[in-house]
Amino acid sequence: LISLKECKINYFPDFIVHPAEEVQMQKLLKLANSLKIPVIPYGGGSGVCGGTTPVKGGIILDLKKMNKILNIDEKSLTVTCESGIIGENLEKKLNGKGYTLGHHPQSIYCSTLGGWIATRSAGQLSTKYGKIEDIVLGIRVILPDGEILETRAIPRTATGPNIMQIFLGSEGTLGIITQATLRIHNYPEVRNFSSFEFEDVSLGLSAIRNILQSGIRPAGVRLYDELDTIIFKMTKEEDSKNKIFSPILKFAKDKVEKLIFRRPILGNKLASSVGKKVLLILSFEGKREIVELEKRISKEICLKNKGEDTGEELGLKWWNHRFDVAYNLSKVFHSCSFADTIEVATTWDRIEKLYYSLKEELSKDVFIMAHFSHAYQEGCSVYFSIMAREADEQKSREFYDRIWDRAISTCLANGGTISHHHGVGYSKGKYLEEELKEGMRIYKNLKSTLDPNNILNPGKMGL
Amino acid sequence: LISLKECKINYFPDFIVHPAEEVQMQKLLKLANSLKIPVIPYGGGSGVCGGTTPVKGGIILDLKKMNKILNIDEKSLTVTCESGIIGENLEKKLNGKGYTLGHHPQSIYCSTLGGWIATRSAGQLSTKYGKIEDIVLGIRVILPDGEILETRAIPRTATGPNIMQIFLGSEGTLGIITQATLRIHNYPEVRNFSSFEFEDVSLGLSAIRNILQSGIRPAGVRLYDELDTIIFKMTKEEDSKNKIFSPILKFAKDKVEKLIFRRPILGNKLASSVGKKVLLILSFEGKREIVELEKRISKEICLKNKGEDTGEELGLKWWNHRFDVAYNLSKVFHSCSFADTIEVATTWDRIEKLYYSLKEELSKDVFIMAHFSHAYQEGCSVYFSIMAREADEQKSREFYDRIWDRAISTCLANGGTISHHHGVGYSKGKYLEEELKEGMRIYKNLKSTLDPNNILNPGKMGL
Repeated sequence: LISLKECKINYFPDFIVHPAEEVQMQKLLKLANSLKIPVIPYGGGSGVCGGTTPVKGGIILDLKKMNKILNIDEKSLTVTCESGIIGENLEKKLNGKGYTLGHHPQSIYCSTLGGWIATRSAGQLSTKYGKIEDIVLGIRVILPDGEILETRAIPRTATGPNIMQIFLGSEGTLGIITQATLRIHNYPEVRNFSSFEFEDVSLGLSAIRNILQSGIRPAGVRLYDELDTIIFKMTKEEDSKNKIFSPILKFAKDKVEKLIFRRPILGNKLASSVGKKVLLILSFEGKREIVELEKRISKEICLKNKGEDTGEELGLKWWNHRFDVAYNLSKVFHSCSFADTIEVATTWDRIEKLYYSLKEELSKDVFIMAHFSHAYQEGCSVYFSIMAREADEQKSREFYDRIWDRAISTCLANGGTISHHHGVGYSKGKYLEEELKEGMRIYKNLKSTLDPNNILNPGKMGL
Repeated sequence: LISLKECKINYFPDFIVHPAEEVQMQKLLKLANSLKIPVIPYGGGSGVCGGTTPVKGGIILDLKKMNKILNIDEKSLTVTCESGIIGENLEKKLNGKGYTLGHHPQSIYCSTLGGWIATRSAGQLSTKYGKIEDIVLGIRVILPDGEILETRAIPRTATGPNIMQIFLGSEGTLGIITQATLRIHNYPEVRNFSSFEFEDVSLGLSAIRNILQSGIRPAGVRLYDELDTIIFKMTKEEDSKNKIFSPILKFAKDKVEKLIFRRPILGNKLASSVGKKVLLILSFEGKREIVELEKRISKEICLKNKGEDTGEELGLKWWNHRFDVAYNLSKVFHSCSFADTIEVATTWDRIEKLYYSLKEELSKDVFIMAHFSHAYQEGCSVYFSIMAREADEQKSREFYDRIWDRAISTCLANGGTISHHHGVGYSKGKYLEEELKEGMRIYKNLKSTLDPNNILNPGKMGL
């Protein structure tokens, strides 16, 4: 995502359609096949990799009218709904009945169920509730030729390859997801937070690893690196108790933002001289007794890793602002600036090297900070935020592309995956073959047999 | 599996090869392609659906020489090994270093890692440690044309469809799995058991459902139905404390076995008049404090469902005999008898109807009992054991086929999957299209593009 204030839209669709029924889409696909017109399935449009950009024109197929909740099975704890439902609407409906989906991506207000499935989304509480592939039990898909495929919502089966998994992450290139059945959970009895400061990233990561490998599953796990810790503490100061300092902090923040864009390397240096600690936020939810025990054992582990208990409040602060997204770009953005995020993942044995290598590589040229999240027993993800500007728009675009090329090759050289949860879309399409290697051939086989006319979301995913 | 004492082997391979290196297999596949000879990947051969039977002759490719452990990553808690390693050997090696894989199928002594992956195996402790698809992080596969595909062992990625999932459950039809990287766990601090008796299956299932939906994850969960409860308590009497009654019980058991085969319907009736209670076994493992809490909350839930606490001992009995397999068939088997298992699964809202419908349908003609296991938040599996005999071998075979046809259609009509973990192989191949519906077309597409000469395990999976 290149965030340009005076953004030029380069690609327009020829049509935008809003189907309310599957049969309309089936007819449309048949027509599109006969005329060879691109069809781009579209949910909330919140993706940051250009996955729904109509790079070859054609028909944007907006699914948001397909937003019905079809069934809540309170015995099996599953919900079946149409794919165009906005995440927040689904979650609120479930909350009203005493349940939660447990899938909370930052985009929850402006992303749809279908988008989550198509892009292999992961929510902020994925450590406890799983990623979308752990949550979806079955899907209904319209194939490129208009035929309907339904994978059965069974707890588990050993009847051949998992066909559903082919569509998860296919980003609209293999079919249009119209319905899904998902696992839901009883709304947690309690929700609890803790936070710890560590001397460095290494100790913080060691604490997370020890927690996960002891069998404990916090809901949310976030470790901010030195710089991100400062930013996390600085932002949203209006919510802190020191209201009197708020205007001063805001002024300071504006100054810092300007510095970051004009002199990113100086920004990195300044930040590294100021930031000395890293902050870990943990959240726990579920049955009261289990939450209390998990929180206590996690604390013991953090203290063993020389963590300092910094209380619940910072965790609560994260929770209250976890969906904050800048819909209006900051004033410091103009046509020569860019800001973006790079989210990669790998196993614990390689995560520090991946983090330091990528940071070192990019900090020569852009302002960079990161946090670690989505913890697993065997590893976690790193989420970098980068900012820079160039002399003019053209240079800025070229610079942006070079930065991405360097980020991707550093990531792959250090055993990382090029996307933990943002997906591939348009912007990372050219790197997908390097990521999947021989697997790309299988993806291409699937594409050519299912969609011989290449009508579904063409020009994406390196296809 | 038709278990015939005087078993005739109908299919023989033309060759059996024991490669020790991938390059040998690559060469072999190229040769087999040019000559259009079937190649059947073979691990431990413990499958019960004829998945490795060379129904079209050709080359049995036995992978058991490919049995090296290549790396144990003690930081990420992963192990990388060749696919021909026998399960028990891998588990023992890990135990020796303080770890466990947590994958304990009954066949662990005679099945291989590659077989587990190829058939989508599930172990007895799958409720805690996951099924094989939750355990495998990455695989290495030789494709039918001899090319190597490696999927990266990353905790999680959002880079397109999950290509690895295509090979899990493909039962040797799409490629030969040669290596895998798997999640391992610290060997549990404690292991603990409990058992409860319930008035009926419905209350027992309700207890399991409530435990799972409260967020607790026992390691093992097994609910024996009325008849299976009797059999469970009766068997292995030599290990019970009442050694004095052992010969009497053994005599009674032989009589019962004879009755079961000669008059299965009478057996069912007799059993239903004797069996009045159902037994639930739970096992817990991990950190002491967590295990104790999980066990206590589970007990509260069982008591709420009118369960009677029957102590640890029955759980321990299950644990000690959990890998017992009859390598030598009982004397009651002869050429007109058969015994088999039917393992299906569905969501909680349909599980009782599935169980009673299938039992009613089959109990008209065969002796039948079942247990419920592999519990998930949204459902579980049912594992039926059936026994019967006919006047002669030919009739027995035809009768066996009719029983399976009826079992499968009853299962599908009640929303079940036709296999929870045994797979499809040869014997269930003809039903796979009914199970996967439009998904079968995608599987066939994959087969024809990857293996145009149909050399890999032909005649299986309904392909």
